Amino acid sequence: MKQLNIGIIGAGRIGKVHMKSITYSVPGAKVLGITDVFPDALPALATEYGIEKIYPDYKAMLADPEIDAVLVCSSTDTHADISIDAAKAGKHVFCEKPVDLTPEKVLAVIAAVKEAGVKLQVGFNRRFDHNFAHIRELINEGKIGKLELVKITSRDPEPPPAQYAAVSGGIFLDMTIHDFDMACFIAGSEVDEVYVNATCLVDPAIGEAGDVDTAIISLKFKNGAIGVIDNSRRAAYGYDQRVEAFGSLGAAVAANDTPTNVTLMTADGVVTDKPLYFFLERYMQSFTDEMRQFVDAVQNDKPTPTTGEDGLAAILIALAAKKSVKEGRPVKVAEILG
Amino acid sequence: MKQLNIGIIGAGRIGKVHMKSITYSVPGAKVLGITDVFPDALPALATEYGIEKIYPDYKAMLADPEIDAVLVCSSTDTHADISIDAAKAGKHVFCEKPVDLTPEKVLAVIAAVKEAGVKLQVGFNRRFDHNFAHIRELINEGKIGKLELVKITSRDPEPPPAQYAAVSGGIFLDMTIHDFDMACFIAGSEVDEVYVNATCLVDPAIGEAGDVDTAIISLKFKNGAIGVIDNSRRAAYGYDQRVEAFGSLGAAVAANDTPTNVTLMTADGVVTDKPLYFFLERYMQSFTDEMRQFVDAVQNDKPTPTTGEDGLAAILIALAAKKSVKEGRPVKVAEILG
Amino acid sequence: MKQLNIGIIGAGRIGKVHMKSITYSVPGAKVLGITDVFPDALPALATEYGIEKIYPDYKAMLADPEIDAVLVCSSTDTHADISIDAAKAGKHVFCEKPVDLTPEKVLAVIAAVKEAGVKLQVGFNRRFDHNFAHIRELINEGKIGKLELVKITSRDPEPPPAQYAAVSGGIFLDMTIHDFDMACFIAGSEVDEVYVNATCLVDPAIGEAGDVDTAIISLKFKNGAIGVIDNSRRAAYGYDQRVEAFGSLGAAVAANDTPTNVTLMTADGVVTDKPLYFFLERYMQSFTDEMRQFVDAVQNDKPTPTTGEDGLAAILIALAAKKSVKEGRPVKVAEILG
Amino acid sequence: MKQLNIGIIGAGRIGKVHMKSITYSVPGAKVLGITDVFPDALPALATEYGIEKIYPDYKAMLADPEIDAVLVCSSTDTHADISIDAAKAGKHVFCEKPVDLTPEKVLAVIAAVKEAGVKLQVGFNRRFDHNFAHIRELINEGKIGKLELVKITSRDPEPPPAQYAAVSGGIFLDMTIHDFDMACFIAGSEVDEVYVNATCLVDPAIGEAGDVDTAIISLKFKNGAIGVIDNSRRAAYGYDQRVEAFGSLGAAVAANDTPTNVTLMTADGVVTDKPLYFFLERYMQSFTDEMRQFVDAVQNDKPTPTTGEDGLAAILIALAAKKSVKEGRPVKVAEILG
Repeated sequence: MKQLNIGIIGAGRIGKVHMKSITYSVPGAKVLGITDVFPDALPALATEYGIEKIYPDYKAMLADPEIDAVLVCSSTDTHADISIDAAKAGKHVFCEKPVDLTPEKVLAVIAAVKEAGVKLQVGFNRRFDHNFAHIRELINEGKIGKLELVKITSRDPEPPPAQYAAVSGGIFLDMTIHDFDMACFIAGSEVDEVYVNATCLVDPAIGEAGDVDTAIISLKFKNGAIGVIDNSRRAAYGYDQRVEAFGSLGAAVAANDTPTNVTLMTADGVVTDKPLYFFLERYMQSFTDEMRQFVDAVQNDKPTPTTGEDGLAAILIALAAKKSVKEGRPVKVAEILG
Repeated sequence: MKQLNIGIIGAGRIGKVHMKSITYSVPGAKVLGITDVFPDALPALATEYGIEKIYPDYKAMLADPEIDAVLVCSSTDTHADISIDAAKAGKHVFCEKPVDLTPEKVLAVIAAVKEAGVKLQVGFNRRFDHNFAHIRELINEGKIGKLELVKITSRDPEPPPAQYAAVSGGIFLDMTIHDFDMACFIAGSEVDEVYVNATCLVDPAIGEAGDVDTAIISLKFKNGAIGVIDNSRRAAYGYDQRVEAFGSLGAAVAANDTPTNVTLMTADGVVTDKPLYFFLERYMQSFTDEMRQFVDAVQNDKPTPTTGEDGLAAILIALAAKKSVKEGRPVKVAEILG
Repeated sequence: MKQLNIGIIGAGRIGKVHMKSITYSVPGAKVLGITDVFPDALPALATEYGIEKIYPDYKAMLADPEIDAVLVCSSTDTHADISIDAAKAGKHVFCEKPVDLTPEKVLAVIAAVKEAGVKLQVGFNRRFDHNFAHIRELINEGKIGKLELVKITSRDPEPPPAQYAAVSGGIFLDMTIHDFDMACFIAGSEVDEVYVNATCLVDPAIGEAGDVDTAIISLKFKNGAIGVIDNSRRAAYGYDQRVEAFGSLGAAVAANDTPTNVTLMTADGVVTDKPLYFFLERYMQSFTDEMRQFVDAVQNDKPTPTTGEDGLAAILIALAAKKSVKEGRPVKVAEILG
Repeated sequence: MKQLNIGIIGAGRIGKVHMKSITYSVPGAKVLGITDVFPDALPALATEYGIEKIYPDYKAMLADPEIDAVLVCSSTDTHADISIDAAKAGKHVFCEKPVDLTPEKVLAVIAAVKEAGVKLQVGFNRRFDHNFAHIRELINEGKIGKLELVKITSRDPEPPPAQYAAVSGGIFLDMTIHDFDMACFIAGSEVDEVYVNATCLVDPAIGEAGDVDTAIISLKFKNGAIGVIDNSRRAAYGYDQRVEAFGSLGAAVAANDTPTNVTLMTADGVVTDKPLYFFLERYMQSFTDEMRQFVDAVQNDKPTPTTGEDGLAAILIALAAKKSVKEGRPVKVAEILG
């Protein structure tokens, strides 16, 4: 099979993660070229990963007929426009989440890739996490019967700067969006209604910026199941990422990952490792696996595992969540697009 | 110290639990007499536990000057009236939960015991459970910092008969009432507002009786913390009773109790015990400890650990929860008494 | 069924444990009388447990026709003679371990009870422990296939006084004797050969008294399986009592018991409870269950679950272990009686 | 720093593991060339890993001045001779374990590298395992006090063909050799004496080939600590690789690694993952880390973390273990070289 030539647009933290995965761990694909609005670091990266081409801008990359697919890893506000341009140029698109903060632009991206007949995958990497993917498998195998309730614990080790909280669109569009997608993935259903019980307990500056940092989000799924997500912008003990799925025949529960499986027992207590602290460490395996599946979808003309519609669904839930906080009532997701 | 002579009103399941605890495990107290509206089984019980007196009815018990305190273990609809009569007769009162399904009668009980100057303890046994009491201790010791979020998982192994669901006042007054009290106990605060996301997934007959069997209950506490309870009337793997408390410095999490700590590892997997299935097995230690503390409160004139006000608080939250389901909106607890 | 009237000879720590179990938790039996070479504490105990009779000495107890069975809880050096006298008096005998430090006297006890036609049970309480008994059940059910290897971890929280180490017969007769019995119980076999790798690392005074405090004991069972016990007289983290059984189809592993199932997660780590520290706390359930089974064996004329032969077997292994340390070589158990 | 050019001699299973690690995960080094006595697969490997040179034999590789270091991944009987030739050619040597089945040839390798002034590292990868290395760190930090006892559980998922058991030198030189090295690593000491309790329970053909498949190996360390290893050639539940270290202040215990941290709870039980089954999956991280440290030792002229002396020590213990089985007695390691 022909090698897939990938271009990466945006060489920040997540762009580099994909460079590493593709170069070292994704057979059948290579990073042919990169570009970034701050190009200074590009030559060193090209050397490190054996990347042949550095483009002056993403349009130059899209004009290169050797490029088969692009990864859109630029700043969120540029995701949609670049994805649309890429689709028009006939390139397959992997777009980091969120596709955009407005449903309209996400719809435009979906329309563009459909029009162009290219693949679109959205960067909900957590679906590929070994723990969460295994829960989904157990559900698919019927091990817990009919799904009734989903519980997601998602707590960051420490809060972002308050100013970031503001520009990111707030906790629901920035952080919980992953959990909204996970909820739909585990439930096997879209969300019908959202109610948010949220407050600012971690950092008053986040509250002053109009955002919350501690939240319990109650969900009704269209398939009749219900769900809950709890978020905090701070967990003193590390990155707390757990999922529980309950059904008519049982439950599947994912605990946190830890650096080792060593227990220390002394007069002070019985101590095990804290959860992995940094998201790249915690989720590296999932970033690699999402890239493998993107390459597989393109090369073998399969549906991508996380679609534009998934990206849209998560954003609609996030906007409904914001509205729920503002209005102090449960909000139907359908109200957002309506 | 003078031995405390206790009379037990109602010799059903919970009455017998207390007979056993007091007789075998509570120094300084004895069951002096018993009574029940169905008296046939009383002689055998009196023999088994060495109980001297069988009364024809509870009024005869209250008239006995040798009785110091009574345990009200009769049917729920009689709790309040008997408690009031007992207080008027100068007896200390231990009343099973719920004190009554209406706040008015609970208030009447509280007024009666205050007027009579006797002790009142309400049967929220779970506060005395080794796991949950330890979480409260860790919070009191400052180990998790300022409390921010409480999560309670409470799932019965199997649903009650649908007709019971109806007469019991519904899931919130019958089952969740324990979790409401636990939420307040762990949060160290009253509840300000409740929102319920509930449905009927376990047994359609429960739904036809106007009740729900699967619920996610979102709570705002008066102290600023938030909380969530998830309930189901069925857990195929046993009685799922867990509590998590998150704070600024960490979290304390109680896992389920199991019959043994044995792990079986075979080609089929690595298997540990299911949670204890039956509530008397799971909570026997807490039933004994609540009785010890009741005896201690009476003998040493201390406040009881679970008061009439605690009983009232839980009922108000339960009624707010019912209203939230009916009206599909968050409900202030203050609306109920208003 | 007629109530079993039990006399307890020796009202020290273990005698009191049995008083409590029988009085509160063993239906069908009662402690009718007690005796002790230091009689001062007896009246208070008789009051506490409602015991009718205090005898001036054990011979007076044996002369009482109302006594059906005796528990021999006196000092080790008197176990055998009292048990023989009890058998001759027609009383069923429960004898604490070790029956004696010499095989000859154990054989004499076995002969005496056989001659008298009474029951003899030896106090190997750990066989009744919920964890270890469950491993045995799993083996009996064929869950781990043919047993191949047994591993026992047995560590006391702190060492006894060095002078005790001397009079007790040394670590193998005093402490490991429980583990030798457990090894036979789990393996379902007698021991053929013992090799001990031991040293004194915890307390030099124990070494000066001619004993060891840290040991790895390698066992060959007659059924072809092999086993290992590791002992220490000190475990800083509590009482470490674990068993592992490996077989052709898998393994069953018992972890330690803990006071609660609560986990505390903070920046300092993820901390769970230390193992229960005190042997009476750790093994209370097993002491009660061994007494229930003794009463059941007597009342229903069943074989006792831990026989005089079991008591003999453990002592022979212990003596072989002592010989192995002295001679630095593997020792056949058959060498001891030969 | 100059890139380290590595040649790999032997492109079997372990040779490929190192190719992958060095190519993808070891900065500062590259696989410059490969060779194998069965050369057919070499071109494809060279393409897959971007390897420039294929040599007709290892002597050709040693003659290439561009090669800085070689990995000796050929069959065991050739390890020593190739390592000596490599040293004489001035190449740094990483030699897979065991260096040889005879101490004499290991000593010759040690002498050759000393003479040549090159580095020698022996492939005891497990020292680099995240769990076991962490136990060693905890010991180094004084967390468990003075080390007293080491316990190693090491069970393969399934036995090798019986004919392999014969040519490999038997279980102690083939399988336990890793555990002997681990015991020394954890104890921080050489072994003084070995006693083996072993039998053939897994596969009679192994016994017919003169080997054992189930063993308990008791160790006395020179520093006064004691230890025990239990081995089996079959564990139905997967690859069982655990280490426990006990000391005066506590214990550090490594549990098995598993594919996920998901628990499935149903009416059938509470089930978690089996241990990782395949050694390459279980130990991949350690293979990569040993290679990083080899490259670091060469480039920065540091001592290698696993030396020729470590390789010799493990072989001497293995030979003492064989002698112990044969003679049924504890054997001093010093007897072997004597």
